[in-house]
Amino acid sequence: MIQVARQEFVKDPVRRTGIGAPFTAVTLTLRKRPPDTGRDERYRLTVVGGLAALSLDAMASVAYGPEAIVLVLAVAGGAGLGFTLPVTMTIALLLAVLTLSYRQVIAAFPDGGGAYGVARAYLGRRASLVAAASLVVDYVLNVAVSVAAGVAALTSAVPELLPHTLRLCLGVLVAVTAVNLRGIAHSARAFIAPTAIFVGSIVVVIVVGLLRGAPAVAPAAAQATALETVGVLLLLKAFANGCAALTGVEAIANAVPSFRAPRVRRAQSAEVALGGLLATMLIGLAVLIEKFEIHPADGVTVLSQVTTASLGDGFGYYLVQFATVVLLALAANTSFGGLPVLAQLLANHNNLPHLFALRAERQVHRYGIGFLTITSAILLIVANGQMNVLVPLFAIGVFVGFTLSQVGMVRHWLRERSANWRGRVVLNGFGALLTGCAALVVTATKFTEGGWLIVVTLPVLVFLMERVHRAYTHIGDRLELGRVPTPPRPNRSLVVVPVGSISRLTRDAIAAALSLGDRVEAVHVTHPDDDTKAFVDAWDEWNPGVPLVQLYDHRRRLGEPLVEHLRRATEKQVFVLIAEVEPDHLWQRILQNQRGAVLARALRRRTDAVVARLRFHVR
Amino acid sequence: MIQVARQEFVKDPVRRTGIGAPFTAVTLTLRKRPPDTGRDERYRLTVVGGLAALSLDAMASVAYGPEAIVLVLAVAGGAGLGFTLPVTMTIALLLAVLTLSYRQVIAAFPDGGGAYGVARAYLGRRASLVAAASLVVDYVLNVAVSVAAGVAALTSAVPELLPHTLRLCLGVLVAVTAVNLRGIAHSARAFIAPTAIFVGSIVVVIVVGLLRGAPAVAPAAAQATALETVGVLLLLKAFANGCAALTGVEAIANAVPSFRAPRVRRAQSAEVALGGLLATMLIGLAVLIEKFEIHPADGVTVLSQVTTASLGDGFGYYLVQFATVVLLALAANTSFGGLPVLAQLLANHNNLPHLFALRAERQVHRYGIGFLTITSAILLIVANGQMNVLVPLFAIGVFVGFTLSQVGMVRHWLRERSANWRGRVVLNGFGALLTGCAALVVTATKFTEGGWLIVVTLPVLVFLMERVHRAYTHIGDRLELGRVPTPPRPNRSLVVVPVGSISRLTRDAIAAALSLGDRVEAVHVTHPDDDTKAFVDAWDEWNPGVPLVQLYDHRRRLGEPLVEHLRRATEKQVFVLIAEVEPDHLWQRILQNQRGAVLARALRRRTDAVVARLRFHVR
Repeated sequence: MIQVARQEFVKDPVRRTGIGAPFTAVTLTLRKRPPDTGRDERYRLTVVGGLAALSLDAMASVAYGPEAIVLVLAVAGGAGLGFTLPVTMTIALLLAVLTLSYRQVIAAFPDGGGAYGVARAYLGRRASLVAAASLVVDYVLNVAVSVAAGVAALTSAVPELLPHTLRLCLGVLVAVTAVNLRGIAHSARAFIAPTAIFVGSIVVVIVVGLLRGAPAVAPAAAQATALETVGVLLLLKAFANGCAALTGVEAIANAVPSFRAPRVRRAQSAEVALGGLLATMLIGLAVLIEKFEIHPADGVTVLSQVTTASLGDGFGYYLVQFATVVLLALAANTSFGGLPVLAQLLANHNNLPHLFALRAERQVHRYGIGFLTITSAILLIVANGQMNVLVPLFAIGVFVGFTLSQVGMVRHWLRERSANWRGRVVLNGFGALLTGCAALVVTATKFTEGGWLIVVTLPVLVFLMERVHRAYTHIGDRLELGRVPTPPRPNRSLVVVPVGSISRLTRDAIAAALSLGDRVEAVHVTHPDDDTKAFVDAWDEWNPGVPLVQLYDHRRRLGEPLVEHLRRATEKQVFVLIAEVEPDHLWQRILQNQRGAVLARALRRRTDAVVARLRFHVR
Repeated sequence: MIQVARQEFVKDPVRRTGIGAPFTAVTLTLRKRPPDTGRDERYRLTVVGGLAALSLDAMASVAYGPEAIVLVLAVAGGAGLGFTLPVTMTIALLLAVLTLSYRQVIAAFPDGGGAYGVARAYLGRRASLVAAASLVVDYVLNVAVSVAAGVAALTSAVPELLPHTLRLCLGVLVAVTAVNLRGIAHSARAFIAPTAIFVGSIVVVIVVGLLRGAPAVAPAAAQATALETVGVLLLLKAFANGCAALTGVEAIANAVPSFRAPRVRRAQSAEVALGGLLATMLIGLAVLIEKFEIHPADGVTVLSQVTTASLGDGFGYYLVQFATVVLLALAANTSFGGLPVLAQLLANHNNLPHLFALRAERQVHRYGIGFLTITSAILLIVANGQMNVLVPLFAIGVFVGFTLSQVGMVRHWLRERSANWRGRVVLNGFGALLTGCAALVVTATKFTEGGWLIVVTLPVLVFLMERVHRAYTHIGDRLELGRVPTPPRPNRSLVVVPVGSISRLTRDAIAAALSLGDRVEAVHVTHPDDDTKAFVDAWDEWNPGVPLVQLYDHRRRLGEPLVEHLRRATEKQVFVLIAEVEPDHLWQRILQNQRGAVLARALRRRTDAVVARLRFHVR
């Protein structure tokens, strides 16, 4: 998905003071925010831009979708491969229904729907979490599959790289992650060229192939004779496997607000264009596969074989392969735009830890990105970088999401009863039925080929999100969120300053403590072999005017004696002021002795004291 | 080295309050520490215990020392291998001088000398840092060599494991690290049995071998004919390589305080016993190598071949190999006792970051242990777990340390002029000359075989320690360490409380702030899309009696607006009180949103404000 760059530096933060607080004189200086329109609109998406930026992972599935079909049918030999076109036509039909259904989603959810949003609005929390879990699974799989498919395209063109498949996959993953952690401003224009080149070259492959009488280069011979006869199960399996080509068709509907006005119209046009282009490419490739009698081969992708047969093995071939590699890397990249935004939304709804909503200094969601990288790296390692191991996992989550959003849409029309609602219910209902059946078929036929992993993962994710939600609810109850708390009252305060030596740092710490507390005491923890006498003498010579408490610990612990001491304090409000040196050079950070950190951690876990840390900046 | 368990739990920490602080009435309740003698003495080392616990890495070098000699001489074929005994005798002679020299070090430094201590006392800072660097290098190499040699002993006995050499090495390293991170109390007694079994079995191998007419099992045939003639350079190389057998003879002198009284006498006896045993084993093995015409062979250690030739390949053989594996693992373990203690000493002298002096909760020096594990893992990976790649690196650092401590001892005697000082000067001077020459020979002959790495590493380490020392000196100057600081004076204070929502947490934070500051203000950072109006309304309804400042940031940053705001404060003492939820369950820690941490980091780097963090414990 896309993040339009909207970051602007406001030099002087607008300032506003609270109104009506009785003890203070306040002024109101609320300056209006800059309006969100005008020049902002320039950065939004046109139909072509939206098609490029949002549908590139759908387009990219052309690189592995047809192969997924052929791979299943090949077990029935030539007879099986003869069904490539019918199976592809079925998938294209499903695609047509989905495209029309999503046209309606766009109209109904101009703020960007997405399966999670639709399910949350119309199907309740539990269903929305199922949708969210399926989306999370898909984002992760999209990264793994796209990377593996991109590397497969590369190793098809350069067979010398074949033994390094896994390392290449991980390298691409690291590169994509690094780019995203730096926080690139995704610009739609940057995606237009690679997408156009890819679509263009696939179209050229299809047209040239259709015109050509015989393959330019003879394809690899069939590797084995028929092992199975063509049956319903085999066709269902081929259909299920090929449905991986449908991933990503929902992306445009999720991102309607990114389009230029009139948003809905433009987004709908982009959706229809995507459906048309994708169907054309899938059917065209299927025709060529049958025409050239392509068989799956080790180390060479089906798309690569089709390209060779159509264009020969010269410059044109390498151009297509290269465009495929680039497009697949960009397709992997779309997950890095999408998952963190979804995770932020889930975190805002208390279903994921709130840190997923945190953007770090470069305005990137580093936790979302990190999650995506680690999980897809694990998938790639387990699958040893093999695209065809990963593709069967893909379609299950996709269809769960499709089905939930279609069912949600049916509920929507039933509730809204806007113009033409009957026709719309029928269309979305038919979509729901088809995708629901597809989800069942896909799950049943792929269960043993890794599908079980998705069947296990989805409920586990839902369970974990429920747990997180319950924990936040509990915390909210304890914090009495939503109720007006009693007014705060000051208490008598004790400020404890742990001291280790006598220096300007100690002086500053005690000065800070004296500025704060009703009572201040310095605490010195001594261990065996410490020269206690020398310290006390130095302290007495200095005579800073606060009492010194010495705590002796035989076991050289830092935190424990202080924790015990604080438990004996009678003040309600206890502060511990830890003074530390903060060197200015970054490398000098390793010179800090970490005692402050150890102490702070012990106090944080075991007491209610407020830990204050004073940094003495050394320049 | 050994850490005698002296940890005792003192239930009620002794408490002492400062004397003569004018503003407070204080009492003096300093309880005496338990005396260090008596039952403590029981845990100290006898001669046998010291021999076991402190010399086991010296003994363990029998597993790789003879092999290092044979490996060099074998390039000159049978004629070269005929020089095994003479080269070993030279090394034994050097060992005798070293043993006598260290007897004197023990007498002169009853508090534990070590090359670093001696050089620091008599040769100045720079020389002491060179000694320290050589010790650090040796500790690391001892881990890598011992682990590799132990695995070599294992794979000699079980050839099926040979392809897994590196993984076995890393596994052993991880196991040793884990044991040390858990903080075992090293008990001398635990070391007696393995060391005794190892020494006993080597002695049996030698005696049986000497009595036997022909080898029990014929050794591997020579792999190639003579490639070189026997020359001075070859003999020097063999000597240099074999000097790896001398590593560890200084350990007893470093740990005199661990012995039972009379410490010096017992330590000296242990040192002499070590020298005698080690020399006997080395010479005995050399005799057998010549007698049985052992040649170096791939995948089988020389010690393993000698054992087979002497005891056959039955139960006795496996016992010796197993004892060797165990002893080498324990030898690797001694570095984990030694390096962290040295690093602590260096940190106390400001030559290493102070965190090396920090013992974590289990009383282990986890930074020292971590450093040792990582560096030796890198060495093992680079050397692919091959013992014979690592051994040549070993002796350089050892001899640099030997030479520095001998030269330091000469200075010592010249300054002290105690009884017999002339004789002592001659002995230590002779030792310094021999080890100095050995250092040169070892460096020159091994430079191209990895010795350059040590030659580069030593000055780099010295340079880094100098840099650290300079940085600490600078920090000390800025802290005015050693001077009596001016008395601390309280200042007017401002306490800023960042608020995000209104809850009990906010209430507690403002109550704490009111207990502290002269002036308190609540700060609310708002971002685009935030519902500012709702927050202000809620605040006004609550009306907690402190002014609310609103800071608007277009870029959704957390820290920056607050940093800018604090810069405008007029108070000298500024506190920022960050309130956070602290869940009680460990897993719930991930529910924290990390905003507090991000804010604290920004403030710490860019302001002088004291950051106080209040934890609201949710149970």
